[in-house]
Amino acid sequence: MIVVMKPHAPQNCVDQVIQVIEGHGLISHLSVGDEVTIIGVVGDKSKLADCNLELFDGVEKIVSVTESYKLANKKFHANPSTIKVGNTEIGGKKLAMIAGPCAIESRDQMLKTAQAIKGAGATILRGGAYKPRTSPYSFQGLEEEGLRYMAEAREETGLPIVCEVTSLEAVEVAAKYVNLFQIGARNMQNFYLLKEVGKTNIPVILKRGLAATVDEWLNAAEYIMSEGNKNVILCERGIRTFETSTRNTLDISAVPVVKAKSHLPIIVDPSHAAGVRHYIAPLAKAAIAAGADGLMIEVHHDPARALSDGPQSLKPSKFEALCNELRPLSKLMGRDL
Amino acid sequence: MIVVMKPHAPQNCVDQVIQVIEGHGLISHLSVGDEVTIIGVVGDKSKLADCNLELFDGVEKIVSVTESYKLANKKFHANPSTIKVGNTEIGGKKLAMIAGPCAIESRDQMLKTAQAIKGAGATILRGGAYKPRTSPYSFQGLEEEGLRYMAEAREETGLPIVCEVTSLEAVEVAAKYVNLFQIGARNMQNFYLLKEVGKTNIPVILKRGLAATVDEWLNAAEYIMSEGNKNVILCERGIRTFETSTRNTLDISAVPVVKAKSHLPIIVDPSHAAGVRHYIAPLAKAAIAAGADGLMIEVHHDPARALSDGPQSLKPSKFEALCNELRPLSKLMGRDL
Amino acid sequence: MIVVMKPHAPQNCVDQVIQVIEGHGLISHLSVGDEVTIIGVVGDKSKLADCNLELFDGVEKIVSVTESYKLANKKFHANPSTIKVGNTEIGGKKLAMIAGPCAIESRDQMLKTAQAIKGAGATILRGGAYKPRTSPYSFQGLEEEGLRYMAEAREETGLPIVCEVTSLEAVEVAAKYVNLFQIGARNMQNFYLLKEVGKTNIPVILKRGLAATVDEWLNAAEYIMSEGNKNVILCERGIRTFETSTRNTLDISAVPVVKAKSHLPIIVDPSHAAGVRHYIAPLAKAAIAAGADGLMIEVHHDPARALSDGPQSLKPSKFEALCNELRPLSKLMGRDL
Amino acid sequence: MIVVMKPHAPQNCVDQVIQVIEGHGLISHLSVGDEVTIIGVVGDKSKLADCNLELFDGVEKIVSVTESYKLANKKFHANPSTIKVGNTEIGGKKLAMIAGPCAIESRDQMLKTAQAIKGAGATILRGGAYKPRTSPYSFQGLEEEGLRYMAEAREETGLPIVCEVTSLEAVEVAAKYVNLFQIGARNMQNFYLLKEVGKTNIPVILKRGLAATVDEWLNAAEYIMSEGNKNVILCERGIRTFETSTRNTLDISAVPVVKAKSHLPIIVDPSHAAGVRHYIAPLAKAAIAAGADGLMIEVHHDPARALSDGPQSLKPSKFEALCNELRPLSKLMGRDL
Repeated sequence: MIVVMKPHAPQNCVDQVIQVIEGHGLISHLSVGDEVTIIGVVGDKSKLADCNLELFDGVEKIVSVTESYKLANKKFHANPSTIKVGNTEIGGKKLAMIAGPCAIESRDQMLKTAQAIKGAGATILRGGAYKPRTSPYSFQGLEEEGLRYMAEAREETGLPIVCEVTSLEAVEVAAKYVNLFQIGARNMQNFYLLKEVGKTNIPVILKRGLAATVDEWLNAAEYIMSEGNKNVILCERGIRTFETSTRNTLDISAVPVVKAKSHLPIIVDPSHAAGVRHYIAPLAKAAIAAGADGLMIEVHHDPARALSDGPQSLKPSKFEALCNELRPLSKLMGRDL
Repeated sequence: MIVVMKPHAPQNCVDQVIQVIEGHGLISHLSVGDEVTIIGVVGDKSKLADCNLELFDGVEKIVSVTESYKLANKKFHANPSTIKVGNTEIGGKKLAMIAGPCAIESRDQMLKTAQAIKGAGATILRGGAYKPRTSPYSFQGLEEEGLRYMAEAREETGLPIVCEVTSLEAVEVAAKYVNLFQIGARNMQNFYLLKEVGKTNIPVILKRGLAATVDEWLNAAEYIMSEGNKNVILCERGIRTFETSTRNTLDISAVPVVKAKSHLPIIVDPSHAAGVRHYIAPLAKAAIAAGADGLMIEVHHDPARALSDGPQSLKPSKFEALCNELRPLSKLMGRDL
Repeated sequence: MIVVMKPHAPQNCVDQVIQVIEGHGLISHLSVGDEVTIIGVVGDKSKLADCNLELFDGVEKIVSVTESYKLANKKFHANPSTIKVGNTEIGGKKLAMIAGPCAIESRDQMLKTAQAIKGAGATILRGGAYKPRTSPYSFQGLEEEGLRYMAEAREETGLPIVCEVTSLEAVEVAAKYVNLFQIGARNMQNFYLLKEVGKTNIPVILKRGLAATVDEWLNAAEYIMSEGNKNVILCERGIRTFETSTRNTLDISAVPVVKAKSHLPIIVDPSHAAGVRHYIAPLAKAAIAAGADGLMIEVHHDPARALSDGPQSLKPSKFEALCNELRPLSKLMGRDL
Repeated sequence: MIVVMKPHAPQNCVDQVIQVIEGHGLISHLSVGDEVTIIGVVGDKSKLADCNLELFDGVEKIVSVTESYKLANKKFHANPSTIKVGNTEIGGKKLAMIAGPCAIESRDQMLKTAQAIKGAGATILRGGAYKPRTSPYSFQGLEEEGLRYMAEAREETGLPIVCEVTSLEAVEVAAKYVNLFQIGARNMQNFYLLKEVGKTNIPVILKRGLAATVDEWLNAAEYIMSEGNKNVILCERGIRTFETSTRNTLDISAVPVVKAKSHLPIIVDPSHAAGVRHYIAPLAKAAIAAGADGLMIEVHHDPARALSDGPQSLKPSKFEALCNELRPLSKLMGRDL
């Protein structure tokens, strides 16, 4: 931590800051410039939690030089993590290919979709039983009934299953069925919910919030990990910008940025980023080329009749074609699909 | 709803869209241009929920012309709403002046702060018992203990109290103490939580999400209202942009925009918008001048030692000076403070 | 300037950085922490322009602690500047009220508008002769012919005139007519143009770019000032965000932020920020309440037939009503209108 | 174009709008709903340029259904364009690989760099002679002297050369030397400059503005094309968002979006997007995988001493290694490198 003093701050202000730092058992290093004086702070900065140094007379600003997340930080865990999910894993040599409908709508839909995507190359089946929708008048999900259909689809296909959870209640119910939780973008900083999934030992896909920085996202992962559950997979799904030709703006740079800052696996959801099925294939390819550990893609047997996110869903045949296109690219990137 | 066809879409595509619209009991109006054909849809568009018309062959896009929120919509409730909160109200002639610390830290802090802000002109006391913090290692709040201190402060001063709730558990506990709930920016689209506060009859301040459009915000209000609780107050607290000289960018236009679209009261939180106490006064004045129904301001008796948001907190004496400055401005705007 | 080393960077990396700093005649201050080592750099950092220290082995990042703008910086010019413009000024006790049509369309339009706004309270007449339009097929301006009409309107009313310039050619022609140049948002970082107006002695309104930070904006002002022309007035006109209910998002905080960082006057353009005339009045009030030195408002005698920006233009009668509303507010803020 | 009336707008308002539409020689189609009435407008909407229908009584909004750009629009030019640049081309089967330093610093630098990148696989040599820099105190470029060095480098290597132009003067000088102009992000809406390069027959790389939508970008291309120069290449270089771990946010979706809307080639500049050399390789791969027609990469023989953009420049050896990595990927995408 560095304290930057205002230009020509009087000596007594500098002294006072140093006194507070050293009074809390930390060490200060003074650097006096012609215009600006800075004070380096050495030691555990959490000891200063009850001192807002930026409010002291003569202080211009505080510059932080270390990240607040520890468990998610690559600096303290250099090797990439691989997370086991049912009979497969995320973060290893095998690319995770998570597919399925946005919302679980019926038993028939889940079984059909599961069979179709299994054959195409999916490794995990997705489906939404608790749907966060912008309007309260849109379809809100089948809840436990939907989870039962998913579990049945797992029985038939062997694919592990993932479902978004949106409340403690949903966590408790879904824990009985799923191999993998998903925390959606809108709940990325629902810290209460993060702690709840952190108390389980079920792996968690943590989607990035629409306006979350990478640092905030890794801090959200830290919430889950600090409760004991280290099995977090990050999912980039587009951020909100001024551009409207796609539903969100896929921040493809987040893939290498996360890999530089964290040991956690990162996957990409091109469906929500694009919002239009026509753009899913190029974004999926870009994600793999950028080094993503997997993809999450919405597949529906009849998109025109989907109750949620139809416009961005692929038909099973298109999903299969996409997997076939992605296979040689994955191989080139040193991955199996 | 308007269906815009692709240039030179073949007749059978146009016919198919019309057939689907009319097959769902709606009326279509065809407008054939030289380049583009459009189809106006008349009737209750929710009947088309299971038809994603944008996916039909020949369709370029769908343009929505009505808002999805109804209860929050000014079109169906022309007069501004006034919400009763304890012995005061929000949305009427009297400006709401909500003040207090970001986090409740101790009994002494709450009592002292409450007395000080009461004298200065506050109408409601705020304090956080459940704190959503970016890092899990930051202070997370005193929970019920904090609520007891707030209730005691209400006893002493007569000021109604407001506290943020972040989970069903918090809703249930806080309901025993507070006059007013607050849903924070990070939970604006935590729809599960919105429904829970919607089932109570305690008024709710709904803060705007960091990346939420006004339409999404009004839809979030609709979630609360559609459960039966019509007592929603909107709070603009800054949105996330590229500018970093303030913590967030106060979207002052949201005040007149909300007043044009909704009957709900709207207040402004200049403390979180600015993130720096030096800018709170000008933003508070701007908010009142733009027509806001009130302000929410962080006040702490010793900001340099605050456990949360110290840099943006005012000392009680500064808060009093601000209220004195705001009084003639409020009067000019036809409001009492 | 502070050099932050990577955690546990080897000693020889630290030594190398220090050697480069000191080899360039600067002084280094070393601060060794448990995890992180930082090096404070004292002296004129421009001497390091050809050393990219962030690329040296072991360096994590460089933190800048001083601004790159000097002439526009309040630190070296504590008193607010007042800029003389014809028979009036901007930045003093009198509020600048700049009004007129987006585009100059005809002699008749300019004369009528000038008379009308003069009576209402305008202090400067605006009009566009060189129009930057998104599409090349939109009206591009009357150029010198338009400037002649403006000059004639000045003759008749005594109001100084301002026109946007978009090229060296326009600067040369407009210099013969106008009292004040305007650099539009799209040209805020057209550094060539900034230098050209910097070589004249005609005052310049510098609009903020759609995606420009306050620091970049002040650096753009520095381009003009470093050529010799110190008469720069900043104009906040809204930034681009995800919100679409207004044309741009008025960054009202920019008013106090600029006042904290610079001595230059700052005015606000609520017309371009709102994009809708209905929101101009509340934004104008907010701007004055926040401390702006003036306003720039689009006025057209027949908005429905305006060739540019009609939807955000006020009729003269509405402009007069607005000025009447703003007068007591200005007085309260210690300003004359 | 569609006119959406306010709910329950009176009949005489509807009649007036229809009268204006038909009075301008266009055809109207009325669609009366329970809540909302809409009027479809058929014909050449430019005839309505002097009627701001959104200002008519009873009108809620105008919805545009056609793009304002024509020459750049894929709807009227279905086949992708290939642009000839010296002895190579952009947009065809061969990937364009444009490389070189941000700023031309010396004759020696250009000749060395040109030789090195030629061997590695570059097809075009870049170098900046007119540098737009945030601060006026940063290095501003060698101007014509720099262009002479570039031309000499072309003599030696056979590589066509590209240089950014920032003014009419620069266009006139550079036209004597370069094979390809570049319009930088900051000048994307410097319409005067766009028209000037539009009057030449030298191909132009048009970089996307920091806050420009794809539609505004294509309209900027239209400015160049409408002056006669059809040889425009678009370059995505990152947009400005709230995320700060990269210099800009590479909008990778812009590649397929542009390919869906326009016939013009699109290349990607991962150097400016990333701002950090460590992220250039993954972004370059993502760009090719997404379908880009080429890359523009900053290469400097001694990045730590570069006068501009050193932190994001690759050494020639790293550039060569990157080209080698990109070759099999390009082949997989059906391209030659």
